[in-house]
Amino acid sequence: MSKLITLNNGLKMPIVGLGCWKIPNDTCAAQVYEAIKLGYRAFDGAQDYGNEKEVGEGINQAISEGIVKREELFVISKLWNSYHDPKHVKMALQRTLSDMKLDYLDLYYIHFPIAFKFVPFEEKYPAGFYTGKEDAEKGIISEEVVPLIDTYRAMEQLATDGLIKSIGISNFNGALIQDLLRSCKIKPTCLQIEHHPYLTQPHLIEYCKLNDIQVVAYSSFGPQSFLELNVQKALDAKVLFEHEVIKSIATNHSVEPSQVLLRWATQRGIAIIPKSSKKERLLENLLIDEKLTLSEQELSTISDLNIGLRFNDPWDWNNMKFPIFA
Amino acid sequence: MSKLITLNNGLKMPIVGLGCWKIPNDTCAAQVYEAIKLGYRAFDGAQDYGNEKEVGEGINQAISEGIVKREELFVISKLWNSYHDPKHVKMALQRTLSDMKLDYLDLYYIHFPIAFKFVPFEEKYPAGFYTGKEDAEKGIISEEVVPLIDTYRAMEQLATDGLIKSIGISNFNGALIQDLLRSCKIKPTCLQIEHHPYLTQPHLIEYCKLNDIQVVAYSSFGPQSFLELNVQKALDAKVLFEHEVIKSIATNHSVEPSQVLLRWATQRGIAIIPKSSKKERLLENLLIDEKLTLSEQELSTISDLNIGLRFNDPWDWNNMKFPIFA
Repeated sequence: MSKLITLNNGLKMPIVGLGCWKIPNDTCAAQVYEAIKLGYRAFDGAQDYGNEKEVGEGINQAISEGIVKREELFVISKLWNSYHDPKHVKMALQRTLSDMKLDYLDLYYIHFPIAFKFVPFEEKYPAGFYTGKEDAEKGIISEEVVPLIDTYRAMEQLATDGLIKSIGISNFNGALIQDLLRSCKIKPTCLQIEHHPYLTQPHLIEYCKLNDIQVVAYSSFGPQSFLELNVQKALDAKVLFEHEVIKSIATNHSVEPSQVLLRWATQRGIAIIPKSSKKERLLENLLIDEKLTLSEQELSTISDLNIGLRFNDPWDWNNMKFPIFA
Repeated sequence: MSKLITLNNGLKMPIVGLGCWKIPNDTCAAQVYEAIKLGYRAFDGAQDYGNEKEVGEGINQAISEGIVKREELFVISKLWNSYHDPKHVKMALQRTLSDMKLDYLDLYYIHFPIAFKFVPFEEKYPAGFYTGKEDAEKGIISEEVVPLIDTYRAMEQLATDGLIKSIGISNFNGALIQDLLRSCKIKPTCLQIEHHPYLTQPHLIEYCKLNDIQVVAYSSFGPQSFLELNVQKALDAKVLFEHEVIKSIATNHSVEPSQVLLRWATQRGIAIIPKSSKKERLLENLLIDEKLTLSEQELSTISDLNIGLRFNDPWDWNNMKFPIFA
């Protein structure tokens, strides 16, 4: 098992979780089950990933075999953009719980501070960028006029009802978080953001630490996650695994470049959610904190690679120009 | 007079206004009066600038002498951070109106998306970074727990009451604007932001254009405005007036570098609020659109100087780490 972090509401979360984004449906249940056997206790999923049934299947298999108890796991999902209207929030969570065959989540994020027009489950689930047949023909995404605080209030209700143990926010910037902290009744425990040496966001991370919000990094390997999605900025960027700075630090410590990237995050107090289809790699990732310690100089040399390069920017989605990072 | 822009509520605003920030109190009334005689019709002031009595004096002198009518002017102020609580918003505007001896404003901005603890007028006005004697001794700024939308609702009430003709927002980023557009009943007409070749913010500006919000640039000369405030980032930056790119374009057109910087903004549809103590320079600025036309190539060469360098970042205020640009 990895180190546990105590969140601002007292809940304990493993600093290393298994990222479920892009785990193929046909191998997902087995990967989750194997990960639990290896010692993984946190699973970072989302409605949008389209594999919640399979994630739940892996979890329930491990529980039914007595490998782990539900209360020892930290199960995470994310409210998709299509369900921001307060009247859809609980329904969306219940879909996740029923798909996963679970009674509650440990952490439920607002996936993006962007509200899409609602799509009924029977029309398309998860809805992705689809907001209706006409929109699809035009290649556009329609928005729902729902202020973030209304969505957040519905999330607070889920927490009050005991359906989720904590509320998270994802892809929120500092200005939104500051305003949320002025508005919320229940503080978010976690902020999940894109975070890698090309996009270090030091002010945002410092602000979260000052306000006791745990930062969770996604896309810790930078461009890597976006190559298969043909994101041009990722194709154009130098692969971090082959970056001289990362490679030489990895060589110094006789580890893989990927380990350096993960430890650079956790050593600075940031939780990580890597994935891998390889058992050895999964175990290395899980035990990264025991295996590797970087020097202050190494940490700052890596941080100096920052060029503010963001790969996951909704500005580019269908050319819709969503300005959450503008 | 300069060109008029039609705002999203039908109101017409001159594309060139006189910026009143840092106009000294002893010369302010005369400068404003002279500016009106030269043809200035828009005056960009703020409670925080501490010279609203004098701005009003210059305006009223011109009106009383029949040089201009009130309805021909476009008078602007900004709600300071100390007055964000809805119960203080109207009071703050009324202080501005009484200081200026005017009945209404044409445009009233929220100066920053940051709420400071209220300070009674009799204790300190304008309050600046002061939030009480104890805070001042500790060198800190206390915040007021007021969500932005509550402040904005009070601004909407001022508009409904006819005390202001339009609502503006200043120093808001794209994420905040998107959420405001999901929440507001009366749309903001203008966004005022730091804008110069070192900080071009193309996505934010494009988003505002798409949503019919007029962008107004402050600190069009970049570091220049911040040198006298001893802002280190400004002292370290290359002065734009001496930048080869700006100088050579100025030489090509036989104008001053400052004219190039202003025209680069207005030609891209952005309103400007320069100031100058020199009469000739004031007139040149006012008539910049008639005097100078840059080529598309020149415009984009200037835009290419962008390095995301921001001089006015509340993160640095008293080291309080306000995250509005994080």
